Amino acid sequence: MTGAPGELVLAEHRGPVLVLTFNRPAKLNAWTEELEDRYFALLDAAEDDPDVRAVVVTGAGRGFCAGADLQRLQAVGEVSEADRARRRPRDVPRTLRKPLIGAVNGVAAGLGMVEALYCDIRFGSPSARFTTAFAQRGLIAEYGISWLLPRLVGHSRAADLLLSSRMVEAEEAFRVGLLDHLVPTAGVVDAAVEYAADLARRCSPASMAVIKSQLSNDADGTYADSVSRAEGLMLQAFRGSDVVEGVASHLDKRPPNFPSLPVRSSDVPV
Amino acid sequence: MTGAPGELVLAEHRGPVLVLTFNRPAKLNAWTEELEDRYFALLDAAEDDPDVRAVVVTGAGRGFCAGADLQRLQAVGEVSEADRARRRPRDVPRTLRKPLIGAVNGVAAGLGMVEALYCDIRFGSPSARFTTAFAQRGLIAEYGISWLLPRLVGHSRAADLLLSSRMVEAEEAFRVGLLDHLVPTAGVVDAAVEYAADLARRCSPASMAVIKSQLSNDADGTYADSVSRAEGLMLQAFRGSDVVEGVASHLDKRPPNFPSLPVRSSDVPV
Amino acid sequence: MTGAPGELVLAEHRGPVLVLTFNRPAKLNAWTEELEDRYFALLDAAEDDPDVRAVVVTGAGRGFCAGADLQRLQAVGEVSEADRARRRPRDVPRTLRKPLIGAVNGVAAGLGMVEALYCDIRFGSPSARFTTAFAQRGLIAEYGISWLLPRLVGHSRAADLLLSSRMVEAEEAFRVGLLDHLVPTAGVVDAAVEYAADLARRCSPASMAVIKSQLSNDADGTYADSVSRAEGLMLQAFRGSDVVEGVASHLDKRPPNFPSLPVRSSDVPV
Repeated sequence: MTGAPGELVLAEHRGPVLVLTFNRPAKLNAWTEELEDRYFALLDAAEDDPDVRAVVVTGAGRGFCAGADLQRLQAVGEVSEADRARRRPRDVPRTLRKPLIGAVNGVAAGLGMVEALYCDIRFGSPSARFTTAFAQRGLIAEYGISWLLPRLVGHSRAADLLLSSRMVEAEEAFRVGLLDHLVPTAGVVDAAVEYAADLARRCSPASMAVIKSQLSNDADGTYADSVSRAEGLMLQAFRGSDVVEGVASHLDKRPPNFPSLPVRSSDVPV
Repeated sequence: MTGAPGELVLAEHRGPVLVLTFNRPAKLNAWTEELEDRYFALLDAAEDDPDVRAVVVTGAGRGFCAGADLQRLQAVGEVSEADRARRRPRDVPRTLRKPLIGAVNGVAAGLGMVEALYCDIRFGSPSARFTTAFAQRGLIAEYGISWLLPRLVGHSRAADLLLSSRMVEAEEAFRVGLLDHLVPTAGVVDAAVEYAADLARRCSPASMAVIKSQLSNDADGTYADSVSRAEGLMLQAFRGSDVVEGVASHLDKRPPNFPSLPVRSSDVPV
Repeated sequence: MTGAPGELVLAEHRGPVLVLTFNRPAKLNAWTEELEDRYFALLDAAEDDPDVRAVVVTGAGRGFCAGADLQRLQAVGEVSEADRARRRPRDVPRTLRKPLIGAVNGVAAGLGMVEALYCDIRFGSPSARFTTAFAQRGLIAEYGISWLLPRLVGHSRAADLLLSSRMVEAEEAFRVGLLDHLVPTAGVVDAAVEYAADLARRCSPASMAVIKSQLSNDADGTYADSVSRAEGLMLQAFRGSDVVEGVASHLDKRPPNFPSLPVRSSDVPV
């Protein structure tokens, strides 16, 4: 496992899967700017590391992430808008081209819940629990959660969770779609890693990157535009080599051998 | 309980919660213009009453609301567009700044189902049941239900309910998200009032008002706009006093003491 | 049942319901251009056939539709964009004015899953199963599925299914909303036909056509526009005869007698 003891986010390579662990267990991994910087830097590095095909994120100890550290809460009020604009855009997790899998091992509160929702897919242990927390602190629905949550669980369930700040336990979280997979006993990280390794084994990295961009664009776009974009992307895919390998491996009944995603460059947007 | 016998909508204050009861039980609370006027007037008054922090709406007797009174159905055909334009805009329930909780005690049909869906959150008793009813009457999906329903239950479940007009019983309603809470035995109003009182006790009225506006704006808006609006609203929240009280009460492990929502004024839009 | 043996899509009238059956059972009904042409032609004919009030689509044998025939997959790469533009637009199923009910009797994979999702409502047998398949073949999310799927099952379940290409069995499909109705034993076609016949018996064809157009428009539109359009459509409905019959039959407690949908004409858009 990379990182000295006391490292804010631990990084461990398990084959093609990078496991990132928020590591302030005594504070239920409460969010700080330093933790954010470290997390985003690790995601940035994973983006361009050909050996990483998927990322799992979890928390050390009992919690996933308890939200913004209260010290930070006070500080935000004192930060000028110029300071904030200088900071890195927050949607590093949302724009990752590789699958980002949450392994929610305990409480995900406030900003910690938002970070869990930024994952493409969420696994939860029986002790996973969620609370928006904002309305109880005199805050508002931060960082896009008022857009995200209704699209995950439906509009009135989102209102329920955002207005009440009530704690949602793992079973309800699974029932309403906050969790996509509920892992019955311990081992939520192992289950998420196994799923991520399966993506690495079976699915084209290029396909997954395009599909992530499609989901993102289509969330805000019209059906007609989605179909039109898909037409262009499909023709593009047919000119690539992954389709050949995908079909051949299917016919041969063998695992496919897809190349890694190319490193990002400014002139080849995905 | 306010209101003479025969009052079309009863109003009862239970602490910080206002309970409104559609009161035409012999007609399963079928909707009339007079009932609508009374309901909207009570909501308007609740909006500016500092002692009301949340509103619960239910029906007297066996039904929640059986939909438009058939006499009204005939009348609508005869109402000129000018007459209709003179009437108050219908989205009084949707634009309320305070939480509106439905306590669905029986059938909610047609317009009665729409009114239930206008609530932010719905509690249901085992005898709660829903039918869109429109296609069976030669009508169309009225008052925005063709926009609302897919966002509550998903697109094909919405098609199922709107095309077939079939009756959906409480258990299915809970499973698909028409009901957010299913109250096992009797007492759906008590359960909804308890939930609403909890909002009043624990959650900032200003936060809840802002979050409601965020949910409304973000339902039609893009993710990027949501994040951008949230950034501004968060900075605004940090300049207010509710954050201080929210954080302090959390650290002190005591209930917060948030001020009531200020009365609406034309120059302070929320 | 219409169609010689070897007909690619079988057509059978069961009262007011037209049952279409993909008929390449030895290939799990894999999609070809010829099958598509036949399916779309049958839907087009159903559109203007006054005796057809709803359409059920299913697959012969063990599968619903295994997706694009692999031969076709190779061919697509060789088809010029001009050729593609000449082909009929793909959204014949999506623009049908009559209810289209899927009876998913087995695997629906790739394009076969897309075709299932184009149905307004889906019934499934216990052997119904779904896989997006695209990422495993080096392909992308085709034909609008990256827009459709999140609106059916929520955003992260859609990411789960699209990124992993994992197989979703009938029970999970029902739980997350890929299936609206799960038929416990055999008889998924009978159940879908019974549902469709019920639409024919009880629901106004004109109402259903308008409601389908509302759902389609409102999926991409704002709440305010939905309400505004509904106002106009409601006034239009009140000028028609179906409301009179819908209300009268309700009061008389007898089945309604609604006229068939008029044949499409260029100057009467629905």
